[in-house]
Amino acid sequence: MAIKATSSGICIDSFSASGAKIGRYGVALIHNPTVCRTAAVFTKSSLRGAHIAVDERRLSTGMQSVIVNSGNANAYVEGGERDAEEMCRIAGGLLGVDRKLVGVASTGITGRKIDTGKIREVAEKVAASLKNSGEGSMKAAQAIMTTDTKPKMVSYEYKGIKVGAIAKGSGMIAPNMATLLCFVTTNADLPRKELQKALSESVEGSVNLLVIDGDMSPNDTVLLLSDAKKPCNRRDFQYLLDHALKEITKLLAKDGEGAEKFLEVVVKGVATKQKARSAAKAIVSSSLVKSAFCGENPNWGRIIAAVAAKEKIKLVRASLAFESGDTKAYVLKRGKSMKLEPAEKVLKARDIRVILDLGEGKESATAWGCDLTEEYVRINAEYN
Amino acid sequence: MAIKATSSGICIDSFSASGAKIGRYGVALIHNPTVCRTAAVFTKSSLRGAHIAVDERRLSTGMQSVIVNSGNANAYVEGGERDAEEMCRIAGGLLGVDRKLVGVASTGITGRKIDTGKIREVAEKVAASLKNSGEGSMKAAQAIMTTDTKPKMVSYEYKGIKVGAIAKGSGMIAPNMATLLCFVTTNADLPRKELQKALSESVEGSVNLLVIDGDMSPNDTVLLLSDAKKPCNRRDFQYLLDHALKEITKLLAKDGEGAEKFLEVVVKGVATKQKARSAAKAIVSSSLVKSAFCGENPNWGRIIAAVAAKEKIKLVRASLAFESGDTKAYVLKRGKSMKLEPAEKVLKARDIRVILDLGEGKESATAWGCDLTEEYVRINAEYN
Repeated sequence: MAIKATSSGICIDSFSASGAKIGRYGVALIHNPTVCRTAAVFTKSSLRGAHIAVDERRLSTGMQSVIVNSGNANAYVEGGERDAEEMCRIAGGLLGVDRKLVGVASTGITGRKIDTGKIREVAEKVAASLKNSGEGSMKAAQAIMTTDTKPKMVSYEYKGIKVGAIAKGSGMIAPNMATLLCFVTTNADLPRKELQKALSESVEGSVNLLVIDGDMSPNDTVLLLSDAKKPCNRRDFQYLLDHALKEITKLLAKDGEGAEKFLEVVVKGVATKQKARSAAKAIVSSSLVKSAFCGENPNWGRIIAAVAAKEKIKLVRASLAFESGDTKAYVLKRGKSMKLEPAEKVLKARDIRVILDLGEGKESATAWGCDLTEEYVRINAEYN
Repeated sequence: MAIKATSSGICIDSFSASGAKIGRYGVALIHNPTVCRTAAVFTKSSLRGAHIAVDERRLSTGMQSVIVNSGNANAYVEGGERDAEEMCRIAGGLLGVDRKLVGVASTGITGRKIDTGKIREVAEKVAASLKNSGEGSMKAAQAIMTTDTKPKMVSYEYKGIKVGAIAKGSGMIAPNMATLLCFVTTNADLPRKELQKALSESVEGSVNLLVIDGDMSPNDTVLLLSDAKKPCNRRDFQYLLDHALKEITKLLAKDGEGAEKFLEVVVKGVATKQKARSAAKAIVSSSLVKSAFCGENPNWGRIIAAVAAKEKIKLVRASLAFESGDTKAYVLKRGKSMKLEPAEKVLKARDIRVILDLGEGKESATAWGCDLTEEYVRINAEYN
């Protein structure tokens, strides 16, 4: 049985959603008729956006609704937690849900007080337009965009298990910074702790291996809500969730700020999973590597140097190829440099796979990213 | 007694030097009539340029001469160590020195065999023009440049102790990559182990806190030679060496690839030295922060976020100011955002100090860097 794409987005089962923007502020609402089991992964930054402490208080009891705003990150500002609680109260009032069952997230400019009056104004409009459909999910995905150029939404089904997700983020940027926000719904009937373990594991193998510019936001949040309607085993759910989060990660990478090329970096033949992830992430994080892709320059030395700076590798065992569509061109085979002309052709494509085989073991990992373009600098230099 | 700038460069006492370029290859020679005590700091990359193993074999006996080439890194290539030894033999033959007393370093393109015939050709010219003067030192500094736009040379004297240094590097770039190479001469009569400790400590507080693009080269090398003519104490030597290496680090930062602004980042009021260095380095490493300076955008949120992603900080204790010449503008005072107009004026300058006070302790550290410009991307994308 294969994973099947669906059109529901996050509006699986009885989940409804919508979103709208008025001026600077966008608001999305996600809602379920019953309380959902909830799991979450937050930024590792030591200074976190105000919404995170509020969400943490909700995790053990669960969430029935979520309110998200774009335009103001509600971070690095006094009284932020009070304002985040006020957002929960606003959404709860509109949806008939106890404030303590409402989750919250914010993205946008830091260091400025959030205007909860404005948020109420937009939220009223959104609450009146909630839909149990892919359309409602798409409106929510659009409302949380900042410098994103496209909304990001996926949904899949596997053995009766459903997973839907929306996300925003395209560089840790926008007004003062953007953020990765990702909201996931599912029907998987698993204990909360199992849901949390599954989410943490999926995040490690997906969005945590996405690098646009290497900067981490204080607001990064992935929130999962389950209505627990489908009994299932953890392995099947993990398989589906991994797939869904990897697919939404690719959408995020393709919309990297100023990006002209999408990079999927596979590092295989590695002794440990952790080393494979570290190596893959080192490649998509290097400004030199990213600049080389922008210039369609098959510079394998930069890729090897980026990995060797972080992990012990043996050049005589390493092979490196670039792939696009059906064309694969080796630039390095067991430490020997190859003719570069075939690789130069591959690098003209928009979607490029980088395949590095370290020839030392059986583990592998994939990371995602984009090239570094003059446009990235322009976006982030000129933003006011 | 104050540190005094001198004009000798690395040609203190009886040290002589020169350099020349023919086509792709540049060669510099450094020479002393007697064997010098030698200390070194090398790249931490797990795949190192071929010259490094050769130099390591010389450290205990010392070096009398050094041969350096630009144009080819002699890295990621078979038989590299043999070629590096051959370079030592070439220099030794021209200077009348045992090959085993000659140090070597390379910078330039990786993955291609170095042409030792070409290097001999240039080295012969250089050996005939060795000079015991600032002019010889400057020629050596010029010969080792790759994407550098300016040669880097400093020399100082303090209580009769002399230190001279030349360096190259401007982004980890050039053909396939550049490299930080730095050659230091001194007359300090200290045991080799003391020289090594002093050099390692100075490097931690200077070039290791310099970030152009965050990429590490397999060839990074700092080599120190002492003729041991001036008895001195370690503290005085450390003081002078720290000063010299910080000054040459500033020259490197000012010549960062595509850089339009020079950043000196001071983080003070920190609980530990290590945390202060980590915080300062986090700021100069952030693509978002570097882009903001390019756009003269006083975006304190990005600076705080870059530090908070790496270290635990309390916003209510933090103050942040930008300084240029006599003008200092606070953007954050003990967690409160200030008016940004004065800071916007400061950011129009070319040389900017960023002063972050974490308000938690007494330690401080300084890191150096530059803004991220569209020109950086252009240089590194389009290089062939």
